[in-house]
Amino acid sequence: MGRNARLAAEELRRLPSSARTAGIEAMGRALRRNEDAILAANREDVAEASDHIDRLRLDEERLAAIADAVEAVAGLPDPVGQEIARWRRPNGLDIARIRTPIGVIGMIFESRPNVTADAAAICLRSGNPVILRSGSDALRSALAIHAALAEGLAEAGLPAGAVQIVPTADRDAVGMMLAGLGGAIDLIIPRGGRALVERVQQDARVPVLGHLEGICHTYVHAAADPAMAAGIVRNAKMRRVSVCGATETLLIDRDAAPRLLPAITAELEGCELRGDDEARQIAPMSPATEADWRTEYLAPVLAIRLVAGIDEAIDHIAAHGTGHTEAIITEDAASAEYFLENVDSAIVMWNASTQFADGGEFGFGAEIGIATGKLHARGPVGPEQLTSFKYVVRGTGQVRP
Amino acid sequence: MGRNARLAAEELRRLPSSARTAGIEAMGRALRRNEDAILAANREDVAEASDHIDRLRLDEERLAAIADAVEAVAGLPDPVGQEIARWRRPNGLDIARIRTPIGVIGMIFESRPNVTADAAAICLRSGNPVILRSGSDALRSALAIHAALAEGLAEAGLPAGAVQIVPTADRDAVGMMLAGLGGAIDLIIPRGGRALVERVQQDARVPVLGHLEGICHTYVHAAADPAMAAGIVRNAKMRRVSVCGATETLLIDRDAAPRLLPAITAELEGCELRGDDEARQIAPMSPATEADWRTEYLAPVLAIRLVAGIDEAIDHIAAHGTGHTEAIITEDAASAEYFLENVDSAIVMWNASTQFADGGEFGFGAEIGIATGKLHARGPVGPEQLTSFKYVVRGTGQVRP
Repeated sequence: MGRNARLAAEELRRLPSSARTAGIEAMGRALRRNEDAILAANREDVAEASDHIDRLRLDEERLAAIADAVEAVAGLPDPVGQEIARWRRPNGLDIARIRTPIGVIGMIFESRPNVTADAAAICLRSGNPVILRSGSDALRSALAIHAALAEGLAEAGLPAGAVQIVPTADRDAVGMMLAGLGGAIDLIIPRGGRALVERVQQDARVPVLGHLEGICHTYVHAAADPAMAAGIVRNAKMRRVSVCGATETLLIDRDAAPRLLPAITAELEGCELRGDDEARQIAPMSPATEADWRTEYLAPVLAIRLVAGIDEAIDHIAAHGTGHTEAIITEDAASAEYFLENVDSAIVMWNASTQFADGGEFGFGAEIGIATGKLHARGPVGPEQLTSFKYVVRGTGQVRP
Repeated sequence: MGRNARLAAEELRRLPSSARTAGIEAMGRALRRNEDAILAANREDVAEASDHIDRLRLDEERLAAIADAVEAVAGLPDPVGQEIARWRRPNGLDIARIRTPIGVIGMIFESRPNVTADAAAICLRSGNPVILRSGSDALRSALAIHAALAEGLAEAGLPAGAVQIVPTADRDAVGMMLAGLGGAIDLIIPRGGRALVERVQQDARVPVLGHLEGICHTYVHAAADPAMAAGIVRNAKMRRVSVCGATETLLIDRDAAPRLLPAITAELEGCELRGDDEARQIAPMSPATEADWRTEYLAPVLAIRLVAGIDEAIDHIAAHGTGHTEAIITEDAASAEYFLENVDSAIVMWNASTQFADGGEFGFGAEIGIATGKLHARGPVGPEQLTSFKYVVRGTGQVRP
């Protein structure tokens, strides 16, 4: 698989952008054409699954959305070959910085079958062959989706090595990928829970683009507009509880809590609230423990903590957050700017829902996740974030003095 | 040291850019003031060294150049807080991408004492505390330079944790740094020979910005101007033989070699030539072995190989290069563009000396090395390349549909 991917990288490099576009479009069509086979495979996965069934389950509508997403990637600008910058030195050297593919990407994921198609499309858009490794829960679905993608690649005359999948759930395969498949893998991207990401970061011998879980915070400042705060918190928590940008912890200024918190909790119907002792004196909720500040629920559960002010909120986020996305709700611009400057997360927001933490919402067209590390890419990872660059220097015989 | 560095990161974040500028200037002054102590320590290192003495040795002039370089970094634009991009979404969200420090940097280097000062200045310019670990050869020099830097930091009121050095040559210290000092180190930068860089890439549990050796190639194409080719090859090899951008292998088109090679070798007085059998029939030189294609000489030695044409040159570079810098010499623009597109190195050049591979020559003001990996930074690494970024999203109450 490593050798095939390397050869595919060379082939992709020689092909024009339009060939990769056609390949992505063909993958989208093949997904639609193979609906029956994919949904049948998915039913088998769901029948055996005990957990995360909502993430795992596909239906006609969800599969159509996956195909739509693939076709949308075909329409994105091709980052490969883009000139990022160009300047001329006093000695006449002309220096350009040009985007290039990274190389072969190893994608290790858990139970979301859509990752198979999203990763294939985004990697092909950026000229990178990908080797996919699905968790066992979603393996049949992933293999069926991959079979469709491979059909699309073949139809478009692209090498099968551009999108490969490990055919078993054998855990040794993960170890081999983390060792780099003998130098064939340039970058590993894990998508999944903390245990997976931590194993990858611990064991990988090749660079890792980490997507830690999103323990996102919304901080309601004393100067928040109550209606806006209630609307944003409801959306940030409840719009979709299973996305990584969902707010898991609400922080609220102590002095303003008696005024603001009841209006917020009134909007959180259907959500289990777990508060510290002070919060529980203001609104009915179950008690929060230390573990609640460190938990990505991905469920209709919200942890609530009162803080003395903005610095305590920032400290709580630094101590318990995962560097994903945090928001402040306030009408006071100076407090907002202080929060935006002093919270060191991939995405910091003022008066907006943390659920906007998404490559599509940022205008990137597509994403395969939100990077929570600080190297290479941070925040939404789309095709552009999966490129490297090189410097192209054009001279007229210059030698260095 | 890890804890001190973390605390320093927080302090640096709260200080204005001007405080870091003042700190770098004070470090430069302290280097000049402590000339006697630094040169005395360096004499002890040199007296015990058996190898790389030219890299190791300092004198008044070289130390003044180091202080000059530090002070030049003080004058560079501060990357921290720079807005890289800003756009507005149709829903009114205002999204800005803002440069931030990476965090704590671990710098592991061998025998160049100037790295101590360069790394300290560049890391401070970009808001990153640094923990330095010098090779044993240069340890006394590095400690003396660090003592001066620490004096400068104190004078400017900056935390000592901003620039620390491991006080011994104990190799266990490297292992601890590679393990991340309990989560305190965000990025490791190795500077040194292949053995060091490979050990770091193999053992590090934190991200690595790899600076592999530079096995740089100059390819003289059949359509090269003979005088330009001779001048560039002489400069690329002989201007300074100990820099990573020095050309180590000359590739030359077989058909044009009888015409071009004698003119080139005539300019390489003082350089040992090692050629393949065909080259040796054209000009006097000793025989090259396979090992020569894979050796970074850092010495007045040049390996010479004849190739059938541009594709063989590109293949040789892909097989034997380290992804650093390669140049083509030709008057044929189409061939040049083909080379620039198809050689996947950090820097690719047309009609220029590979010795221009340098952050200063690129206009970056300073560098701590040339990154040969493809992730995060590639090519010259200056202050800007030692930053991450975050997205700052300003809304007016938006919730996601």
